[in-house]
Amino acid sequence: MKIGTVTGSVWATRKASCLMGQTFLVISTGDEDLVAADQVGAGKGDKVLLVTGTVASRFCMEAPIDAAVVAILDSEKQP
Amino acid sequence: MKIGTVTGSVWATRKASCLMGQTFLVISTGDEDLVAADQVGAGKGDKVLLVTGTVASRFCMEAPIDAAVVAILDSEKQP
Amino acid sequence: MKIGTVTGSVWATRKASCLMGQTFLVISTGDEDLVAADQVGAGKGDKVLLVTGTVASRFCMEAPIDAAVVAILDSEKQP
Amino acid sequence: MKIGTVTGSVWATRKASCLMGQTFLVISTGDEDLVAADQVGAGKGDKVLLVTGTVASRFCMEAPIDAAVVAILDSEKQP
Amino acid sequence: MKIGTVTGSVWATRKASCLMGQTFLVISTGDEDLVAADQVGAGKGDKVLLVTGTVASRFCMEAPIDAAVVAILDSEKQP
Repeated sequence: MKIGTVTGSVWATRKASCLMGQTFLVISTGDEDLVAADQVGAGKGDKVLLVTGTVASRFCMEAPIDAAVVAILDSEKQP
Repeated sequence: MKIGTVTGSVWATRKASCLMGQTFLVISTGDEDLVAADQVGAGKGDKVLLVTGTVASRFCMEAPIDAAVVAILDSEKQP
Repeated sequence: MKIGTVTGSVWATRKASCLMGQTFLVISTGDEDLVAADQVGAGKGDKVLLVTGTVASRFCMEAPIDAAVVAILDSEKQP
Repeated sequence: MKIGTVTGSVWATRKASCLMGQTFLVISTGDEDLVAADQVGAGKGDKVLLVTGTVASRFCMEAPIDAAVVAILDSEKQP
Repeated sequence: MKIGTVTGSVWATRKASCLMGQTFLVISTGDEDLVAADQVGAGKGDKVLLVTGTVASRFCMEAPIDAAVVAILDSEKQP
């Protein structure tokens, strides 16, 4: 997983029907900007955990999603 | 998912038979150029949402596609 | 697989329910920092073997995980 | 998918038995060189369409292939 | 697939049980170092063909492996 920060969201009227009802956030990982389906109600400025690839679609009832926000981080600690 | 801009398309007479009937667009993501199957009728200059990897093939009846255009963006807003 | 070093861990109170009970470590591979589910009880400073992608989820009862620590390295030898 | 140019091929006498009978081409995408199974009879200098990842194996009867040449491009046009 | 050179191997006493009996080689692709399960008996200095991603696990009885050495190259020729 990658750590990123929510920087915004995107809207699309014309889209594949299986994407209806999904919220798409723009996430900056420092290296790049990705668009991810939101599973946890994240908002702008939140530091989040991002899952990418095929497994991301398991959060979304197998919709064709390749990135999902799956957690909002409390903090980073040293073990 | 990634955000990209449609810059053109590609034609191939000699191709794997399971790719017949697909439209292939060239998409620039800023970092690189990718070729993606079009699922939403995008045209040159459109800003689109791009799904990559195995999940892209779900839009295309399981054809061996690793990238698909799944939405045309209205705009990018701040949440 | 990639070789990395455990540099810390992350906590998330608000997360997808299927991630309950997982421990998430921050791993530096030199090139980048990743967050991975821990399967072997690794601690800070351990040099570990990191599996990424869909196969990582097999270690975690098919939870939607895209990176897992699967071994703690003894040493690197020449064959 | 990516666009690349065929620059050569590779031979391997010692290989996993499930790879018998496959032709492997070396493809330059500009950024990197990849080795891909050939499904369309491409030759040196041909500009080709390259599928990578799990879906590439669908062209090859589920053999463990992670890249395949699936089309020879006619030309790139503007839509 | 990628072409790489075997530069060494790694040992791990503490590892996920499903990885028992696998040999792990360190492979340099020029750009990066990867650790891959060996399916063909490769040794240090051999030039090898490397499969990455989910398909690599098919060589290893579905063990959670994301990279495998599947062939030892004879030579690179021009088609």
